[in-house]
Amino acid sequence: MKIMIINGPNLNLLGIREPDKYGNVTFEAYYIYLKEKFPEILIEHCQSNVEGELINFLHNAGFSYTGIILNAGAYTHTSIAIGDAVSAIKTPVIEVHLTNVFAREEFRHNSFISKHAKGVICGFGLKSYALAIESFF
Amino acid sequence: MKIMIINGPNLNLLGIREPDKYGNVTFEAYYIYLKEKFPEILIEHCQSNVEGELINFLHNAGFSYTGIILNAGAYTHTSIAIGDAVSAIKTPVIEVHLTNVFAREEFRHNSFISKHAKGVICGFGLKSYALAIESFF
Amino acid sequence: MKIMIINGPNLNLLGIREPDKYGNVTFEAYYIYLKEKFPEILIEHCQSNVEGELINFLHNAGFSYTGIILNAGAYTHTSIAIGDAVSAIKTPVIEVHLTNVFAREEFRHNSFISKHAKGVICGFGLKSYALAIESFF
Amino acid sequence: MKIMIINGPNLNLLGIREPDKYGNVTFEAYYIYLKEKFPEILIEHCQSNVEGELINFLHNAGFSYTGIILNAGAYTHTSIAIGDAVSAIKTPVIEVHLTNVFAREEFRHNSFISKHAKGVICGFGLKSYALAIESFF
Amino acid sequence: MKIMIINGPNLNLLGIREPDKYGNVTFEAYYIYLKEKFPEILIEHCQSNVEGELINFLHNAGFSYTGIILNAGAYTHTSIAIGDAVSAIKTPVIEVHLTNVFAREEFRHNSFISKHAKGVICGFGLKSYALAIESFF
Amino acid sequence: MKIMIINGPNLNLLGIREPDKYGNVTFEAYYIYLKEKFPEILIEHCQSNVEGELINFLHNAGFSYTGIILNAGAYTHTSIAIGDAVSAIKTPVIEVHLTNVFAREEFRHNSFISKHAKGVICGFGLKSYALAIESFF
Amino acid sequence: MKIMIINGPNLNLLGIREPDKYGNVTFEAYYIYLKEKFPEILIEHCQSNVEGELINFLHNAGFSYTGIILNAGAYTHTSIAIGDAVSAIKTPVIEVHLTNVFAREEFRHNSFISKHAKGVICGFGLKSYALAIESFF
Amino acid sequence: MKIMIINGPNLNLLGIREPDKYGNVTFEAYYIYLKEKFPEILIEHCQSNVEGELINFLHNAGFSYTGIILNAGAYTHTSIAIGDAVSAIKTPVIEVHLTNVFAREEFRHNSFISKHAKGVICGFGLKSYALAIESFF
Amino acid sequence: MKIMIINGPNLNLLGIREPDKYGNVTFEAYYIYLKEKFPEILIEHCQSNVEGELINFLHNAGFSYTGIILNAGAYTHTSIAIGDAVSAIKTPVIEVHLTNVFAREEFRHNSFISKHAKGVICGFGLKSYALAIESFF
Amino acid sequence: MKIMIINGPNLNLLGIREPDKYGNVTFEAYYIYLKEKFPEILIEHCQSNVEGELINFLHNAGFSYTGIILNAGAYTHTSIAIGDAVSAIKTPVIEVHLTNVFAREEFRHNSFISKHAKGVICGFGLKSYALAIESFF
Amino acid sequence: MKIMIINGPNLNLLGIREPDKYGNVTFEAYYIYLKEKFPEILIEHCQSNVEGELINFLHNAGFSYTGIILNAGAYTHTSIAIGDAVSAIKTPVIEVHLTNVFAREEFRHNSFISKHAKGVICGFGLKSYALAIESFF
Amino acid sequence: MKIMIINGPNLNLLGIREPDKYGNVTFEAYYIYLKEKFPEILIEHCQSNVEGELINFLHNAGFSYTGIILNAGAYTHTSIAIGDAVSAIKTPVIEVHLTNVFAREEFRHNSFISKHAKGVICGFGLKSYALAIESFF
Repeated sequence: MKIMIINGPNLNLLGIREPDKYGNVTFEAYYIYLKEKFPEILIEHCQSNVEGELINFLHNAGFSYTGIILNAGAYTHTSIAIGDAVSAIKTPVIEVHLTNVFAREEFRHNSFISKHAKGVICGFGLKSYALAIESFF
Repeated sequence: MKIMIINGPNLNLLGIREPDKYGNVTFEAYYIYLKEKFPEILIEHCQSNVEGELINFLHNAGFSYTGIILNAGAYTHTSIAIGDAVSAIKTPVIEVHLTNVFAREEFRHNSFISKHAKGVICGFGLKSYALAIESFF
Repeated sequence: MKIMIINGPNLNLLGIREPDKYGNVTFEAYYIYLKEKFPEILIEHCQSNVEGELINFLHNAGFSYTGIILNAGAYTHTSIAIGDAVSAIKTPVIEVHLTNVFAREEFRHNSFISKHAKGVICGFGLKSYALAIESFF
Repeated sequence: MKIMIINGPNLNLLGIREPDKYGNVTFEAYYIYLKEKFPEILIEHCQSNVEGELINFLHNAGFSYTGIILNAGAYTHTSIAIGDAVSAIKTPVIEVHLTNVFAREEFRHNSFISKHAKGVICGFGLKSYALAIESFF
Repeated sequence: MKIMIINGPNLNLLGIREPDKYGNVTFEAYYIYLKEKFPEILIEHCQSNVEGELINFLHNAGFSYTGIILNAGAYTHTSIAIGDAVSAIKTPVIEVHLTNVFAREEFRHNSFISKHAKGVICGFGLKSYALAIESFF
Repeated sequence: MKIMIINGPNLNLLGIREPDKYGNVTFEAYYIYLKEKFPEILIEHCQSNVEGELINFLHNAGFSYTGIILNAGAYTHTSIAIGDAVSAIKTPVIEVHLTNVFAREEFRHNSFISKHAKGVICGFGLKSYALAIESFF
Repeated sequence: MKIMIINGPNLNLLGIREPDKYGNVTFEAYYIYLKEKFPEILIEHCQSNVEGELINFLHNAGFSYTGIILNAGAYTHTSIAIGDAVSAIKTPVIEVHLTNVFAREEFRHNSFISKHAKGVICGFGLKSYALAIESFF
Repeated sequence: MKIMIINGPNLNLLGIREPDKYGNVTFEAYYIYLKEKFPEILIEHCQSNVEGELINFLHNAGFSYTGIILNAGAYTHTSIAIGDAVSAIKTPVIEVHLTNVFAREEFRHNSFISKHAKGVICGFGLKSYALAIESFF
Repeated sequence: MKIMIINGPNLNLLGIREPDKYGNVTFEAYYIYLKEKFPEILIEHCQSNVEGELINFLHNAGFSYTGIILNAGAYTHTSIAIGDAVSAIKTPVIEVHLTNVFAREEFRHNSFISKHAKGVICGFGLKSYALAIESFF
Repeated sequence: MKIMIINGPNLNLLGIREPDKYGNVTFEAYYIYLKEKFPEILIEHCQSNVEGELINFLHNAGFSYTGIILNAGAYTHTSIAIGDAVSAIKTPVIEVHLTNVFAREEFRHNSFISKHAKGVICGFGLKSYALAIESFF
Repeated sequence: MKIMIINGPNLNLLGIREPDKYGNVTFEAYYIYLKEKFPEILIEHCQSNVEGELINFLHNAGFSYTGIILNAGAYTHTSIAIGDAVSAIKTPVIEVHLTNVFAREEFRHNSFISKHAKGVICGFGLKSYALAIESFF
Repeated sequence: MKIMIINGPNLNLLGIREPDKYGNVTFEAYYIYLKEKFPEILIEHCQSNVEGELINFLHNAGFSYTGIILNAGAYTHTSIAIGDAVSAIKTPVIEVHLTNVFAREEFRHNSFISKHAKGVICGFGLKSYALAIESFF
């Protein structure tokens, strides 16, 4: 079982950016925790602020991994191209968000990814990633 | 740790209604499985097709339980009153859906509950309930 | 041949409410007439002002009756849950309205039921029910 | 009792066009059946693909016939002019559709005719015409 | 002079729910105050979280009381059926709200009741009920 | 000076259709009056209920007449094609309406013709035609 | 206790304009009645048809009076500037309307003032002013 | 026969402002021409850039003049209050515009005045005023 | 190989109408060129300004020709009926436009035909027809 | 070099109104500072709460000054007439706002002035005026 | 004659991604065919999933090539920046799509490129590229 | 004092692209001028056509520079991700545009950046950058 976590724009600032809102744990720290919590799974991780790089990541992992966990950040709401990539690949994709996007601005309520994802988990902070991994069992 | 699962309209037909779409497991059968899987938690369950009854359930559980897992079915998309009830109580509420509502009709993309929920989990079938319980740990 | 007529909110006032608009015949009186006109059919009737009760009625009749004639009144325009119930059951449903809803306010032009109904008949007053019964022959 | 049936665009293809969707009975064949079923009524029929011709038909029949049964096809959704013609004449008009237009594309949900019609019957295939005739008794 | 006060969903939590927003006086306590303030009037009171129950209350009081004071809570914004009930009865109805609904979310600005009410009073907390009673003198 | 008056759908019923709204003078009678009032002008007149015929009329008159007075009736609000024809010809076109279309239904407020017309005159009954002729002096 | 009543456009015609709709009592006459009914309060009154004058009135009274009762007439629906003025001053403002604006045209349903007002009272004719004064006790 | 011409904002710049678009004739010059052309009519004229002043002008002339010709300029599209004033007075009002407003920006296509006006004339430059006077004969 | 070219409203003016925009070649002249360029194909051509005539043309050619090239002009954007005809016939239809409709007014961006067409070619002037023919090889 | 600063509604309250939001410096105080900072420029200033007065100010300065700095306050978002005045005059106009209007309510995002202004500066408090003057060098 | 083909996001998966929908020919294979079919033209090709890279490609080819054939994939519908790049360069651009985008989801009907393109060709699969090349002859 | 200027898509073409619209000065030339004009400030500059690169630039400068001047070009109107980056960093950002974007197409009126920017300056050509620098004094 091989799972790829793909993080999108501004998520490299996690732990630095608005810590009262997003906490002060970096994704790298949480990533170590995840690997310990699920020792039987091969978990990998990549991040980019570039929309097209996320598409490349999806293409690369999308025909051989067991699952992809995708937090596309703000591109969730604007990128038809990422949605198309999710639809084009074979690996099932779980869409996650740290915050409850539905409790935020109107323009964050639409997702071009959800339609092609297997499921959506949002609002549980970093724990959203762990729940997504659980969903593959 | 005491968790209340509240199911809304038409969910009493689970296992009977469109089995190719929703599976042929009834909620009662899954409920037994859940109790076995999480023996350390007190899990309770109630269902109604009446919008106001769901509000009553939320009021009753909303000041003493550890968590509420709410699948409000189609009322999710039309009931400001249930959203208000979720906001009025003290117990955190997780919104769940069996299907990926974002891959369905436009009118199922809006939720009056999400805004007041702690998080949202959808698209994992009955497993959505188990993931919601996990989120309380 | 067994047909269930389900009437929704405010239809219990028929004959009393705005008689110049809806006539002064009560549904009960018309119900007797219908039974006489179609003696070979078992016709039953129930009414509720509660949205969830209408869903219960649909569930109860929806797996054993030949047909259901549903006048959901104002819930027609707001209830996704009743639409889902119509979709979930096996018995075909005919949507009827006393008045021509399309000649009334804009918000009465949308129906969450029509999509799942076998057909729609509106604008013929109480005769709409008789035409709906005819449609089953 | 004299009734005029007016059919609009593409209805001349009935029985030929997409038979799995519309059946393989031509309107002419059904027309013979209708005349036999209602021998006491004078039923006439005309068809055109031209919007303005339908207006002419309405003007011609609209001051002397007992009733008009109008299936304006796709013009139903775009023609204010046909709606005005229905409003301008004296004979009551019943709007019919073979299919349940509300279960089809969004742009077929609006009708400029309904507002001026006596009633609407849709979704019963060719039987819609027979029910419309019944409504005049 | 006989006045019926009808309260809708979540108003049973008044004094308990978000006291910093709605105050810590229960409706029952205020109800006693109202009866003392207007000793010459027969004031009655009922509450339900069920939409259809509110319709029943309106039907019951709507042909014999002098006035009805209706706080339909969140159903104000979604219930065409309650609006129809207000329109169907004979007793004049005053729509009241504790908070200034126009200073809240967009979806609380629409009311299906106002159109059929005699008047609207909102934003004065529990005093809104007293002003509504004054309006009948 | 040669002026063509082109009338669109349902205007052939003028004097017959809803006389309390449109008066009981036929266009033919008014046409005689117009010719007497403006003896120095050659006034011609044509009418059709067919949208494409109105386009033909515009093409025929649009390169040789001094002016065209166009009452396109309900096609005003739906026909981009007539608007294109007005734009394609050389003769200036005055758009007229008997009634004040802006005091009627919302869907009569848009005109695809106005944008290409020289001017618009509406609301003066049959006198609208005379004012349009005056505008050419 | 010092209260300023500010009336907006066309309210100077009260008693003259459409008496069957607005009654034939002038505001001046009612003003005398109000002063008699509340002898312990200093009530003042001003009116203007000019939007900016109403802003001046609000500025003048807005830092020293106990309350302001504002009937901004049609400016209610279009004036962000008056809304800003209400927000900028210190004195609480009650928004009143003679008629039930929600039962009138769509464009009268929006108010730029409500958001900043303490409360809203509408639909009680001239009595709306008296109820507004009551609300200050 | 006494006719009042009321001009709104920016019309005082006529002849100075964008002469290639509006011509270089001032309204005063045209006003002299109008008085000569219609010697049998008493024509008066007033102008203001202030919305409320236009309302005052309408009130002053609206109960004693034969007709009012109103060019409310840009207030046409934003002022519900002027529309109300037109509706409140007794004298019939003709709405005129120099340019064809329908061939201009989208936000100039709506008019709050048209609904209450007797008729609308636009697009004929200054001649629009003369045609409006003709309409009173 | 038999191809039918169907041209819609105002295309009969090609070469005459706004030559700086559409060129000064008539369709007839281009038609001769097309026949010479593709001598191995039987190319036919018809034109009408009448919407219903275009439907007739589609019905006539739609069950026996190899392909149809349809330039429905302005009806493209308003005619659901032509779209239905394209859907009802068997021959594949290529939608063409002389100009790039997407670079023109908003209301020309919607097409009721595209959905049922095999492909769309626009913006190449008369060459659009030649490219459409090429597409059948 | 002669520059006119025109301030609109509620800006006379600057320094008094919501000081935590707008600061406690009055415009008069800042005006003195501006004159000292730019001694080589003739700076003038006027303010009104009346929309039409602002139009008068624009007309008066608009044909002889080097530049106009316009803070039209809330009229920015509702006044087509002020926008027309800016367009009608010759002097270039810079639109300024104290606050970043784009970070405020939706209805403050539209401006009828921007389209005709030379440039827009907002969000720098009173410094916005100084930057606007700089832009003329 | 030098033509650049620029392909956007997900087009690198052609032949692999959903072969029943897009065929199993890779673009590279088709590219060889194109070069053989048009031996007299210099055809080049580049692809990227990164929006900004496509802009770079357009800048690089846009001042020296005879033509550009752009299939911007999903960026077609969201990228104003690519539209601006097409507008900024000198080489004419033909917009192509493999599928008939108008027969797909609503959000694929808008294109920010079409407005600046010379023409649009869509729905002919890989043949769309060959037709685009033909258009340059 | 250290200021970073970040330029977005197509701005590398400045001086080359449409010189009659944007002038023929390159940004590099202007950049030298800026450094000379403000010798006491450290001004740096970077440009990319890639959305994600702009986010990287913002992250890099956003925790140590005094100010950022951001001209995000067309990404201004579509990129929620850049808006999030502006919100996530600590350095204040001034949004600038060369042209008055509000006088251009509707889709350029929305900005996802403005909401998080300190201020907005647009319409002054390259001088917009100088004014933005001034704003930091």
